[in-house]
Amino acid sequence: MQYRRLGRAGLPLSVLSFGAWATFGKSVGRSLARDMLALAWDRGVNFFDNAETYGNGVAESLMGDVLADLRFPRDSWCVSSKVFFGAREHPKPTQRGLSRKHVIEACHQALQRLRVDYLDLYFCHRPDPDTPVEETVAAMDLLVRQGKVLYWGTSEWPAPAIVEAHRVAKENHLAAPSMEQPEYNLLHRERVEVEYAPLYRDYGMGTTIWSPLASGLLSGKYDDGVPADSRLAQPDYAWLQDRVLGDGGERVAKVRRLRPLADELGCSTAQLAIAWCAANPHVSTVMLGASRLEQLEHNLGALEVLPKLDEATRRRVAQAVA
Amino acid sequence: MQYRRLGRAGLPLSVLSFGAWATFGKSVGRSLARDMLALAWDRGVNFFDNAETYGNGVAESLMGDVLADLRFPRDSWCVSSKVFFGAREHPKPTQRGLSRKHVIEACHQALQRLRVDYLDLYFCHRPDPDTPVEETVAAMDLLVRQGKVLYWGTSEWPAPAIVEAHRVAKENHLAAPSMEQPEYNLLHRERVEVEYAPLYRDYGMGTTIWSPLASGLLSGKYDDGVPADSRLAQPDYAWLQDRVLGDGGERVAKVRRLRPLADELGCSTAQLAIAWCAANPHVSTVMLGASRLEQLEHNLGALEVLPKLDEATRRRVAQAVA
Amino acid sequence: MQYRRLGRAGLPLSVLSFGAWATFGKSVGRSLARDMLALAWDRGVNFFDNAETYGNGVAESLMGDVLADLRFPRDSWCVSSKVFFGAREHPKPTQRGLSRKHVIEACHQALQRLRVDYLDLYFCHRPDPDTPVEETVAAMDLLVRQGKVLYWGTSEWPAPAIVEAHRVAKENHLAAPSMEQPEYNLLHRERVEVEYAPLYRDYGMGTTIWSPLASGLLSGKYDDGVPADSRLAQPDYAWLQDRVLGDGGERVAKVRRLRPLADELGCSTAQLAIAWCAANPHVSTVMLGASRLEQLEHNLGALEVLPKLDEATRRRVAQAVA
Amino acid sequence: MQYRRLGRAGLPLSVLSFGAWATFGKSVGRSLARDMLALAWDRGVNFFDNAETYGNGVAESLMGDVLADLRFPRDSWCVSSKVFFGAREHPKPTQRGLSRKHVIEACHQALQRLRVDYLDLYFCHRPDPDTPVEETVAAMDLLVRQGKVLYWGTSEWPAPAIVEAHRVAKENHLAAPSMEQPEYNLLHRERVEVEYAPLYRDYGMGTTIWSPLASGLLSGKYDDGVPADSRLAQPDYAWLQDRVLGDGGERVAKVRRLRPLADELGCSTAQLAIAWCAANPHVSTVMLGASRLEQLEHNLGALEVLPKLDEATRRRVAQAVA
Repeated sequence: MQYRRLGRAGLPLSVLSFGAWATFGKSVGRSLARDMLALAWDRGVNFFDNAETYGNGVAESLMGDVLADLRFPRDSWCVSSKVFFGAREHPKPTQRGLSRKHVIEACHQALQRLRVDYLDLYFCHRPDPDTPVEETVAAMDLLVRQGKVLYWGTSEWPAPAIVEAHRVAKENHLAAPSMEQPEYNLLHRERVEVEYAPLYRDYGMGTTIWSPLASGLLSGKYDDGVPADSRLAQPDYAWLQDRVLGDGGERVAKVRRLRPLADELGCSTAQLAIAWCAANPHVSTVMLGASRLEQLEHNLGALEVLPKLDEATRRRVAQAVA
Repeated sequence: MQYRRLGRAGLPLSVLSFGAWATFGKSVGRSLARDMLALAWDRGVNFFDNAETYGNGVAESLMGDVLADLRFPRDSWCVSSKVFFGAREHPKPTQRGLSRKHVIEACHQALQRLRVDYLDLYFCHRPDPDTPVEETVAAMDLLVRQGKVLYWGTSEWPAPAIVEAHRVAKENHLAAPSMEQPEYNLLHRERVEVEYAPLYRDYGMGTTIWSPLASGLLSGKYDDGVPADSRLAQPDYAWLQDRVLGDGGERVAKVRRLRPLADELGCSTAQLAIAWCAANPHVSTVMLGASRLEQLEHNLGALEVLPKLDEATRRRVAQAVA
Repeated sequence: MQYRRLGRAGLPLSVLSFGAWATFGKSVGRSLARDMLALAWDRGVNFFDNAETYGNGVAESLMGDVLADLRFPRDSWCVSSKVFFGAREHPKPTQRGLSRKHVIEACHQALQRLRVDYLDLYFCHRPDPDTPVEETVAAMDLLVRQGKVLYWGTSEWPAPAIVEAHRVAKENHLAAPSMEQPEYNLLHRERVEVEYAPLYRDYGMGTTIWSPLASGLLSGKYDDGVPADSRLAQPDYAWLQDRVLGDGGERVAKVRRLRPLADELGCSTAQLAIAWCAANPHVSTVMLGASRLEQLEHNLGALEVLPKLDEATRRRVAQAVA
Repeated sequence: MQYRRLGRAGLPLSVLSFGAWATFGKSVGRSLARDMLALAWDRGVNFFDNAETYGNGVAESLMGDVLADLRFPRDSWCVSSKVFFGAREHPKPTQRGLSRKHVIEACHQALQRLRVDYLDLYFCHRPDPDTPVEETVAAMDLLVRQGKVLYWGTSEWPAPAIVEAHRVAKENHLAAPSMEQPEYNLLHRERVEVEYAPLYRDYGMGTTIWSPLASGLLSGKYDDGVPADSRLAQPDYAWLQDRVLGDGGERVAKVRRLRPLADELGCSTAQLAIAWCAANPHVSTVMLGASRLEQLEHNLGALEVLPKLDEATRRRVAQAVA
């Protein structure tokens, strides 16, 4: 495994990591979850991502149980949670958002579910227009000082909101955000590559990116239509279908053009797409989700593709789907 | 229920809330208290107000017992306490005021009585001329950092004292006050509408207002004299009678002029008076006290009047009692 | 009892208070200690003074046992400790002074001996030339933030050292000292009246003064020589004799001149001398020590003399011993 | 024993102290460790040095067991740990370095192994180029505020990195480093005497120096070749041999020139070399390691040589090995 610092912060994360989103507590039960974390850890993965809202808390409880069961030394891995959407289907007004109350209560609840004394990473899952950023930054600082959070960050915040959080932190001697968790893949590049560019330079911001396969599209598994057992075919994710495949399937067409390049590099399009993300030096870690063990194993294989992705090849890959 | 942020702070409070003042531990015992909190919560009320001095601690103990009993999720409601008057009939000198000692000890005692780990809101019940505001602000900041208080504020402080508290907080990087708890109703408007006006703009101050019915006067229940079973008829509250009814009953006369407007809107004068308060956007929440369950239910009905109170109607109501 | 704020701080202390120095764990055992604290509290005394070095910790253990036994409500009284000399006859180098290590360890030990969760007042018993004042102020601030100390101060520090502590505190946003514990009596006035004068004005410094009777001299009990059962006759306090009585007894001669004034006011010279200290508005509290219960009771009688001490009378008293 | 403040800090350390490096958990087992600490403490040593990496945690566990066993009062001695290299042969990426995660986790682990509630001294064992100094300073400050560390410092940091740590601390009102732990002996003088010179003046930096005998070389024990039972003869320390003896043994030759001076002062070359280090006023304490009890006893004898080392003699000693 390769390890990278979380931006300018001192924390080394495995360049490929594991996310519980959309799988834990859904298609992935306890036994499979255990096998997945064991496999990932065995391959050097040291970051397990989660959020209060994944399965309304079930994904965190499941991960907490499995981590307790596996007994990896606590100082050898990192776990995250995210606060914003709440951990209930119909959250009460105080059970969501980034008020001091919810940021603190959600942290305590995540610590309980994950069965840890502190979160290594804690994210504001979305910006909250109804809470002043001063209040949220102060709440995060409080958790850091109490030893309940090591690094805090944002997820899918527009660049100006992150800049504002840094200004508030600096002005009040509070802990500043260390990382962002944005979507990033061959078909969704703007934010990570352009919008956030000044933030890497000015604040040393790290990124823990999600959806490297664009909800599976870049694995090529929709090249010949949506398989019945895939996530997109599940009623819960119907809303994703258009977004993933593109109107008229023009996104699918792009993906088909990745095949020859993948063949040339001796890997699958999924591995190529993942390695392509990891080859961006501003990406601290690429989070992999999986609903089957072989899928996780396969995607971890992207690590071997990474050394082959020199700048020129990386450009050719991007042009193929442009 | 409608929810509003506590001024510029991120905390959403129900626009109608519940206060224990003058009832809990007096006319309201455990069984009725339980029914009232259950009813309020069922209607969406998420803020329960209290103070060390209400029934000398009995109101808090009662509320704590009932909340523990009802088992609403802790993150779905807010509870407050207030410090200043002490929780004893004859407090010793150190058992009252806003010294660091009393602010901290009163907080610990309220946490025990209310059976919670932290107060969502903690008020300085009055200004303390014998304690420098620096000392009180620092004590509140300490409680916030220790996780024992989420938001702190003032109650019935003159505007300049609140401005001073903000200055001290800003200068020393301490937690600033978020809210005020003033009296506000159709017959008592000056402080909330004029004196505090710059504070909403400059500090985003929220308000949790008390006495929307002017001690019951605006419900019209004294229109035909003081009923024997009303609070004003109780010996403990004799001192209130003149203040409430006005010398020569001129305040009662004003209230009688509300009836036609209430009839027009299809509600009681009580509901009209409550809704009128809630229609002020600088009011975060209107606290309702009640000594009978039906009274609480009736007053919560003000919520349906609220949408009918456009600016013009609100002005007509105010003019009726001017 | 009369109560005064501790300088500009919000803490109200009884103008007469109780000190354990030189008696607790020496001539005063558990039963008498209990009677003394009970009497004092009964008369409205709310401050009990102590130090790690009094009886090498025994005075604190004794007071802690008695306070636990008497069960006065914790919020109705204040207790102090002082750090510097250590709590052993031959302290190791790290067991004394004002290093961060000793300030923190001595606090923890005092909390255990006194059986409380926090000290209301914590004094630096002397300045420590070998420790930067920055280190001591930061250690005190840390204890305040951890909730283990409410107010910290100094004892017998020269004015410039106190000024320096305030400068350090202000510059680093740390808790500043609130009070001094100096010797003060009719024969020892310079420091409190002249040297500290700017500190009352600039920092609102309070004072908890000791030795109002100049080690008993002002009670007149040495007017006819040193009685065999008095403290000065004990071998442990032989070193005090010259200092107390004056070379050639000239201090005794001065004291004899107080008698006529005391007679005029209908009190003892002890009561007059105590009341004279308390009449200084910069004195927050006059600490009384006693080895017999009647002595304590008698000295508390100074309270009745206090109202008779107008400015003119106070000046006449001072001139008598000048 | 002589005691010196830790630079400008208020902590008094014995001028000779005890280090566990390279012995505890290796040649020194529990029984000998107990005898050594007992002897050292008996002679007035009050500082016991350790690190997470010494014997991969075994040295700390051993010292913790022995200290618990010996029951010296906790406030009479100081213990240290150091963070950087990890406590495992093959540390995972997050198990070493100066990230906030490792600094905090290593502290918690050292507290457990050493069986104490706080470390008196906590060192950054080396600079970490992959972690911003801001992050490390903030993590140390957090541990100080939580009461888990009293004084923090560095070990073998270049002067500019220490200056930078002070700048960060001052700018953010964080606890600044108090001490350095550098190598220092007659053959390794540059860093302590020249490079660090401005740091004593500007920051009052203290030093806890290691290797006063240059890995035993200055004891003269290699004057006639490497004895079979010495550390340098052990396979684990083969890498040290050239560094210690010098290419072609020219360092051994220098050491032989110390003999006449030692004879003159009536001591061994080891005692002379140790006393020479201690005579430097910028050295707070000279740490002695030992694998045999007699060796420790012998080296503690350096204390008697110290008063004989006036400036002129100290210069002659240095010239002998120049």
